[in-house]
Amino acid sequence: MTQLAEKTADNLRKIRQLKPLVHNITNFVVMNFTANVLLASGASPVMAHADNEIEEMVDHAQSLVLNIGTLTDAWVTTMIKAGRRASELGKPIILDPVGAGATLLRTNAVKAILAQTWVSVIRGNASEILAIAGASTTAGGVDATNSVNEALEAAAILARERGTTLAITGASDLVTDGRRSFRIQGGHALMPYVTGTGCSASALIGAFHAVDKDPVSAAATALAFFAVAGETAGDRAAGPGSFMVHLVDALYNLSPEEVESRCRIEKI
Amino acid sequence: MTQLAEKTADNLRKIRQLKPLVHNITNFVVMNFTANVLLASGASPVMAHADNEIEEMVDHAQSLVLNIGTLTDAWVTTMIKAGRRASELGKPIILDPVGAGATLLRTNAVKAILAQTWVSVIRGNASEILAIAGASTTAGGVDATNSVNEALEAAAILARERGTTLAITGASDLVTDGRRSFRIQGGHALMPYVTGTGCSASALIGAFHAVDKDPVSAAATALAFFAVAGETAGDRAAGPGSFMVHLVDALYNLSPEEVESRCRIEKI
Amino acid sequence: MTQLAEKTADNLRKIRQLKPLVHNITNFVVMNFTANVLLASGASPVMAHADNEIEEMVDHAQSLVLNIGTLTDAWVTTMIKAGRRASELGKPIILDPVGAGATLLRTNAVKAILAQTWVSVIRGNASEILAIAGASTTAGGVDATNSVNEALEAAAILARERGTTLAITGASDLVTDGRRSFRIQGGHALMPYVTGTGCSASALIGAFHAVDKDPVSAAATALAFFAVAGETAGDRAAGPGSFMVHLVDALYNLSPEEVESRCRIEKI
Repeated sequence: MTQLAEKTADNLRKIRQLKPLVHNITNFVVMNFTANVLLASGASPVMAHADNEIEEMVDHAQSLVLNIGTLTDAWVTTMIKAGRRASELGKPIILDPVGAGATLLRTNAVKAILAQTWVSVIRGNASEILAIAGASTTAGGVDATNSVNEALEAAAILARERGTTLAITGASDLVTDGRRSFRIQGGHALMPYVTGTGCSASALIGAFHAVDKDPVSAAATALAFFAVAGETAGDRAAGPGSFMVHLVDALYNLSPEEVESRCRIEKI
Repeated sequence: MTQLAEKTADNLRKIRQLKPLVHNITNFVVMNFTANVLLASGASPVMAHADNEIEEMVDHAQSLVLNIGTLTDAWVTTMIKAGRRASELGKPIILDPVGAGATLLRTNAVKAILAQTWVSVIRGNASEILAIAGASTTAGGVDATNSVNEALEAAAILARERGTTLAITGASDLVTDGRRSFRIQGGHALMPYVTGTGCSASALIGAFHAVDKDPVSAAATALAFFAVAGETAGDRAAGPGSFMVHLVDALYNLSPEEVESRCRIEKI
Repeated sequence: MTQLAEKTADNLRKIRQLKPLVHNITNFVVMNFTANVLLASGASPVMAHADNEIEEMVDHAQSLVLNIGTLTDAWVTTMIKAGRRASELGKPIILDPVGAGATLLRTNAVKAILAQTWVSVIRGNASEILAIAGASTTAGGVDATNSVNEALEAAAILARERGTTLAITGASDLVTDGRRSFRIQGGHALMPYVTGTGCSASALIGAFHAVDKDPVSAAATALAFFAVAGETAGDRAAGPGSFMVHLVDALYNLSPEEVESRCRIEKI
């Protein structure tokens, strides 16, 4: 998709120029890495979760990323409050349903967020996406070994039902709104050995969606950029420790032109 | 101990094959590094602390690591709930008593966890172990400069009283259940300059204990593997920043064979 | 300022010899990096925030760093409790007003902390300092693009009113108590692309203030040391990921003599 490759480069240029503020209510494990991924890419991260400042912070931000990695009831309440505000203001919301299906709390948190806010993009692994689909469409089972391809059909149904774009990441990534579907190739085998790569991908979708109103294009181009950076990092890394370092460096150094020539997005 | 060197390699092989899920209720400072240490070593980390999902998460996990580094009353309550569930299910619990002796809250938290759950291994520095021993056996004083050797006697008494294995880490490490005692050599002088190396060692004991039912062997082999990785990282590092990177890379790259030939565990 | 260059080296020597305990109540995003910056520099970090241990922890510490980056009402209450204890004991308090001006919660938290504790040094960027000044002196507006120079006058007025030292960091840094003012040069253009560099600077002021009773000298020498380390890291880094690694290595490796010869502090 030459068109989406160009769009990837355009979105990256806009992020570096406009430095959109991406508001993250995310888990404790990945806060630092996520902030550094956003900064290196050119965006401005803010992490804030206090119930009595959350709406003001959403007002400042250009997009909102909700990640339930280390959730509690209080945080879910705050996420919904933030999400309702963002929905009212028409600011894009990205939901990362970490561990959906693993516990009732997580599955119910996802349901509540989806019911009460207007989520533009859901980014998860195949198991998480199947868990969400199962909760609302009785599709598929939940298994950490589910492949991206297995989750595509459930994702497309869920996308159409909800009017939401689904991004399923794995060895390759899929993005679908139930009508348009794209596959993104790239990345590196070390990525699953670094905590927070998925969460960072969700945050990057937040940055791309801040400058690109089309959720399918925003998600696909963000994942394409991340995949190119992952390839670069993988070429240079000696293990997951140095992979993290090279990934952040690559996100900072990659030119829009290089990303455009190297990214691999195909319509499926 | 050729036997424990072989066991170190065997346990590492099992971790990389079985990818045991290690559930960590740990402090905010080290969550990211701990997750990356576990992933690099081959295990699957999960960090979760919500009271209303904690038992479900314990059900999924193969071991439970409780670390009181940034505790609050609410977290201690949740740790105990998680620990009781793990005890019922016979899943190994590793306790990292960060700062025990420094405040009453910490000392009391350790007492409460030990009284209400079946802790298999306690991993701490000499001062922390002496503080715990003092709390229950009136042994020794508490001083951040206590050496590993000073703590051994108190640890052995505590181990026999509690039926728990004690792992005391420092320039060299000691593991004892009050009957069998082992010393592990290795590591590097930069380790104390990186936050979370002790906490990560506790998490690694969680991974090794998930595949090795013997707490003494699990603790000794985990620390031996970590010590070899620390040596490798120390050889390559230019300071504590690069040490962290090389440590994670080493945990990922070290073959069981190399670990077996290099690890140094002696019976004492 | 040869005098302050010498003082920078002296303070660094004292930190490495005395290893002062710096108690941080700080935000989740930067806890790990802050602890590693303090350790690499020679200080001993502790992160603790439980209301029922906070005074005991302050008793152990040589300085207290309050950072409102991911605040909640409960944390602010605990920060004030810790700050009151430190004030009673005459231990230096450093306040990092992250995001002051961005939300009412943050601005009010800063006001409450300043009203109820004896803050020795406030370290922020120009926008944060102007926001604080505006809250109490009706000076300036709040804008993330405010330059350090713009904030100097407001900072000097605020410093005299409050009897507090202000440290404003940016492309160059300014330190003033309203009578003496210093500019610190150095650092690197990659610093704003790494999360937590400002927060770490505040923590380092805590370490320097633990060994240097003069708040102006403590803040200026801490920032001068950090600026030299930033230059070293910038020379070696290929991007923000490797910058973090080299920064921590530089903080560990820089000798007091090299810091003295390279640091640039001028009276203004």
